[in-house]
Amino acid sequence: MSSILANNKIRLSVFGESHGAAIGCVIDGFPAGIELDFDKIKRDMQRRAPGRDKTATPRKEADEPIILSGVLNGKTTGAPIAVEIKNTNTKSGDYENISLVPRPSHSDYPAFVKYGGSNDVRGGGHFSGRLTAPIVFAGALAKQALESHGVKIAAHIRQIGSVCDERFDYNNINKELLERLETESFGTISAEAEAKMRAEIEKARLDGDSVGGIVECAAIGVSGGFGGNMFNTVEGRLSYALFGIPAVKGVEFGAGFGLAERRGSEANDEYELKDGEVAFKSNNNGGVLGGITSGAPIVFSVAIKPTPSISKPQASVNLETNENATLVINGRHDPCIVPRAVPVVEAAAAITLLDILLDN
Amino acid sequence: MSSILANNKIRLSVFGESHGAAIGCVIDGFPAGIELDFDKIKRDMQRRAPGRDKTATPRKEADEPIILSGVLNGKTTGAPIAVEIKNTNTKSGDYENISLVPRPSHSDYPAFVKYGGSNDVRGGGHFSGRLTAPIVFAGALAKQALESHGVKIAAHIRQIGSVCDERFDYNNINKELLERLETESFGTISAEAEAKMRAEIEKARLDGDSVGGIVECAAIGVSGGFGGNMFNTVEGRLSYALFGIPAVKGVEFGAGFGLAERRGSEANDEYELKDGEVAFKSNNNGGVLGGITSGAPIVFSVAIKPTPSISKPQASVNLETNENATLVINGRHDPCIVPRAVPVVEAAAAITLLDILLDN
Amino acid sequence: MSSILANNKIRLSVFGESHGAAIGCVIDGFPAGIELDFDKIKRDMQRRAPGRDKTATPRKEADEPIILSGVLNGKTTGAPIAVEIKNTNTKSGDYENISLVPRPSHSDYPAFVKYGGSNDVRGGGHFSGRLTAPIVFAGALAKQALESHGVKIAAHIRQIGSVCDERFDYNNINKELLERLETESFGTISAEAEAKMRAEIEKARLDGDSVGGIVECAAIGVSGGFGGNMFNTVEGRLSYALFGIPAVKGVEFGAGFGLAERRGSEANDEYELKDGEVAFKSNNNGGVLGGITSGAPIVFSVAIKPTPSISKPQASVNLETNENATLVINGRHDPCIVPRAVPVVEAAAAITLLDILLDN
Amino acid sequence: MSSILANNKIRLSVFGESHGAAIGCVIDGFPAGIELDFDKIKRDMQRRAPGRDKTATPRKEADEPIILSGVLNGKTTGAPIAVEIKNTNTKSGDYENISLVPRPSHSDYPAFVKYGGSNDVRGGGHFSGRLTAPIVFAGALAKQALESHGVKIAAHIRQIGSVCDERFDYNNINKELLERLETESFGTISAEAEAKMRAEIEKARLDGDSVGGIVECAAIGVSGGFGGNMFNTVEGRLSYALFGIPAVKGVEFGAGFGLAERRGSEANDEYELKDGEVAFKSNNNGGVLGGITSGAPIVFSVAIKPTPSISKPQASVNLETNENATLVINGRHDPCIVPRAVPVVEAAAAITLLDILLDN
Repeated sequence: MSSILANNKIRLSVFGESHGAAIGCVIDGFPAGIELDFDKIKRDMQRRAPGRDKTATPRKEADEPIILSGVLNGKTTGAPIAVEIKNTNTKSGDYENISLVPRPSHSDYPAFVKYGGSNDVRGGGHFSGRLTAPIVFAGALAKQALESHGVKIAAHIRQIGSVCDERFDYNNINKELLERLETESFGTISAEAEAKMRAEIEKARLDGDSVGGIVECAAIGVSGGFGGNMFNTVEGRLSYALFGIPAVKGVEFGAGFGLAERRGSEANDEYELKDGEVAFKSNNNGGVLGGITSGAPIVFSVAIKPTPSISKPQASVNLETNENATLVINGRHDPCIVPRAVPVVEAAAAITLLDILLDN
Repeated sequence: MSSILANNKIRLSVFGESHGAAIGCVIDGFPAGIELDFDKIKRDMQRRAPGRDKTATPRKEADEPIILSGVLNGKTTGAPIAVEIKNTNTKSGDYENISLVPRPSHSDYPAFVKYGGSNDVRGGGHFSGRLTAPIVFAGALAKQALESHGVKIAAHIRQIGSVCDERFDYNNINKELLERLETESFGTISAEAEAKMRAEIEKARLDGDSVGGIVECAAIGVSGGFGGNMFNTVEGRLSYALFGIPAVKGVEFGAGFGLAERRGSEANDEYELKDGEVAFKSNNNGGVLGGITSGAPIVFSVAIKPTPSISKPQASVNLETNENATLVINGRHDPCIVPRAVPVVEAAAAITLLDILLDN
Repeated sequence: MSSILANNKIRLSVFGESHGAAIGCVIDGFPAGIELDFDKIKRDMQRRAPGRDKTATPRKEADEPIILSGVLNGKTTGAPIAVEIKNTNTKSGDYENISLVPRPSHSDYPAFVKYGGSNDVRGGGHFSGRLTAPIVFAGALAKQALESHGVKIAAHIRQIGSVCDERFDYNNINKELLERLETESFGTISAEAEAKMRAEIEKARLDGDSVGGIVECAAIGVSGGFGGNMFNTVEGRLSYALFGIPAVKGVEFGAGFGLAERRGSEANDEYELKDGEVAFKSNNNGGVLGGITSGAPIVFSVAIKPTPSISKPQASVNLETNENATLVINGRHDPCIVPRAVPVVEAAAAITLLDILLDN
Repeated sequence: MSSILANNKIRLSVFGESHGAAIGCVIDGFPAGIELDFDKIKRDMQRRAPGRDKTATPRKEADEPIILSGVLNGKTTGAPIAVEIKNTNTKSGDYENISLVPRPSHSDYPAFVKYGGSNDVRGGGHFSGRLTAPIVFAGALAKQALESHGVKIAAHIRQIGSVCDERFDYNNINKELLERLETESFGTISAEAEAKMRAEIEKARLDGDSVGGIVECAAIGVSGGFGGNMFNTVEGRLSYALFGIPAVKGVEFGAGFGLAERRGSEANDEYELKDGEVAFKSNNNGGVLGGITSGAPIVFSVAIKPTPSISKPQASVNLETNENATLVINGRHDPCIVPRAVPVVEAAAAITLLDILLDN
């Protein structure tokens, strides 16, 4: 497995299994001298953590990050930052019948093919969504480093099932909105959207089912000229990290797939002078042109599939007996993973953006 | 700039400017002993080349690849394969007023910010779509190496403007379809779709405008267990390469963004035994689970924005005088870049997939 | 700082400071299914640990590795292996005056320039030789994976001060010798050499001084054809890792610098058939030709400078007052670091060699 | 094969075979806006080229670099710089019997094992020393970029056979000496050393033999704080590139292997104030401490083995018939490759140092 995000400057090495002793990460190459705000780190960890309300699994996880290195008197030292999060509330029993009967749309089967059964399957093992906790920790640090460069990043739930939130106003995203969103555990632009989305999730939960969605993320304050063309694009680098989040199946920048239906005259982002500065009249490209930041806000969306773990019986195969089997998953599941994915999307983006900024 | 696709095994280094002496690439790490079919290379180069019909710019380019190294008696030697394509039909005059008045939705402005005017802007310079020719060359070689592993890859035009082709039958893609598609210069599954798409493009052309679209690509014959989780996912690696193609603004795997609206019970790909082998009852995940190939066909789609170069006058800014300006682009443009993008998508995917296969 | 050894398959991320909470590492990409022998891991950790006898600092370190992930029921799972070693016996007081008066030939001064004083300087911080403990842990695992491929690796002390041990018989290194060496805490081929070397170290210790040396390392069982030419050479990759060990100032393969004085007719390794197999009549190239393993034993030597920390007063500069200063280092030092460096050299080589083998 | 030097910023991809159409390279990531001095490029190419006098093979090579991209009006554009050098004077006949009877101490045999005979063996193919020509080209560009940062780099022949030149005065290397050395085709500090070395080479030539040597290289003007500890050391990165030069078998920094015999009190580089600045009283560490530049000149030496191609008959094996064989190499050889290696050492160091500087 490769759980290293090998950026140019910042390299993130994630470790741990859902039911092992601990999970965590090492952040190598993080800038020295950044004063850390531990409350903000904790807040992001809690936005990701399960057990807050009915939209997520009732499983509780303490998710207390213990910093082992790289921080002295609350400031980063430039040395690798290692963090450990102990695993506590683990019920392996729930997962026992899973190892030989792969859960549909989980990694169980391809992991079995790849590792021949050597891998730890308890609770998804190293493939578990729980491994996003160290990513959120690293992202919280990256956000603080980004703020020292004047960059603010936050995401909202664009869609759950058939319910859509308002979209960001791509060419005009104000800081206050992002500051609100980064504190919310169910972040939407419109309050009505939240209520309808919660209802959609509750319906799925009552049906023993799950539902998917889309997260839209924005970063403001990144000036033009960062990134590179062809094989060093801002889009390529962000999507590489974003597809590392379990359940992500699509990434689009700006108007993305919607551009397929447009004419050039409707899609092009024209220029104009604003207070003597070059500005954009629209931002359908989501702040990236030719792989390089344009100076407009960076905006992208991430498609998230419905949680594969559902209570309904599903067709599968027993890999030992090579017979068809019906699988019933008993454990505790999220009827919708999208709200908890929001801070993970922000984190993966923040780590990558910080690297892109430091790399220039 | 970074025009190196630094895979683990195969590294592609692309060079050249639209109006320089030559463009080309070096393919490092390509396997030794592959017998090359030069007709197939030429065919892919021609599928990408402009000037074939009214859907593309009438500009003619010879696009004759001259192999400088790495091939002896028609077989690869294992040494780096260098290829050169001379630039011939270049009219720099057409582009003269562009350098100081950036074309909307092109890389002109961010490249100006990044390089402070040192970069070669003639014809887009190193950012030109012409630089996809060496990628197609490398892809043609990768396809041949993939075929020796039983893997076939091809793409079709899924959508142009409001016209949609049929979609691949994700769980049941036959080789004959892919073999037909890889020979076509305007590849669609349904013949009617082609006719309607051509009409859509012609309408845009007559309006001095352009239109976007979506390319859908499939690879069959990849068995399960390739790739890796978290930061070595098949999705992340493919999208990284795909976003290196100019005008790509979105990538989705399997049902992609459509999964947002689904329930888990509708989205999950259940298992069943087929002739004693583990098989899938559907393939909404597009052949990748937990970042690892599942054994089902790999299917993904790529959103392509409308060609930014249109004849209509556009608002821009003169970067020298710092005044608002109206830009009229005279040169020769593609009213729709999507048909020519098809072999480029196949190429970027083939190079990456070959690397993923060799890496295991 | 970059404390990641970013090999192609196995990536080692080391973290920790001498006086922080813990040191450790994450080993990403380690093969699944390797049964670990914890006694051998412990043995290598102890060979590196200080406090064994008068050749090393009397400082005691428990150096108990706690595995956090990647190992289940004594076998590797393929997931990242994280290990933590708590820091216990740390006396920060000894180092207090050091931070502003850099110790000659230590990293203090360039680290101060680089990090502007943000870095943790207690006990050398992240630059401390103590950080080699996780490398030895990773090396012990790599050795076990190498043994499953029939490869055995071990090193001896070739020289300390003016005392030289016998050299390996490059073309004929038997496994028994390597098996003996890997168990020794003061490994020499000749027993007399050990006695004389110990005397040399004791003399330096009594003088409040230190002494340098050379470690020679061999790997047998690596067949021909691994590695690559130019920028993927076995020599380049091994030396890259070896220079990561503090105090290493030179690396040579086979006869190395001695080849400067030779004629080609004396240096060339001729071929002969031996039991029907291609064999070498000598091995002055140390098992690598054109960057690729030749099939002969891999042999290289590593120059290690005298421990910079000595009791004698030294000239330095106070970085705060910008005045000349005399430095007396009180802490506990190794009069000779060479014996403790032996398992670290083996470890860095084992990790790199395993990666080279897996990469083919 | 991997002929890519994948630095962090500058990536060098070398291609070509000794007897193919052309050799060359692509330099990706080179800074924009550097005005190139083509006479200096030519001068370095000629220092490396054969056929100048009796110390080298009489084979003449034009070695005219043709720039294909990345340079406009004599200035770098920031886009990849591709260069091509046509092969002209190639006599394949000389090498015909070599392919099946490997030349001792050449890469023939391991390359045969690795590529199973698919590789181009004519004239060494991609392993040929001729492939150092594009490296020298890239190095000449890197030197010019380094000069714009105030860094000067040059090397001399430290030793050939038993004849030694003076060594650099590590702590006090003046620019004039380096400026003289970079123009010489047989660079020594002492004029007498040159005469004696030439005699040593002539003796080897008359014997149908060859002789090895050592090149010592220095870089002045690099301030402290560049590079990194552990796995990003200046030593590790330079040695990685230097071992990419054919025939290099050892690399040492500062006093290197000589430090083995020293006491700490003799080896440590003490500090003193000089004109109010922190300065060193000696530079046995060769300008690198803890993997980071110290601000003192960077000095290192490179051991070069005798040219393996000699006229004397040598024992080898016929790989087809599996019989012992006697090999007589008829072609044109260098009795000593060391003088021609000097600009290659400078080049590999310059490319790497530039990357280290840009990376901070």
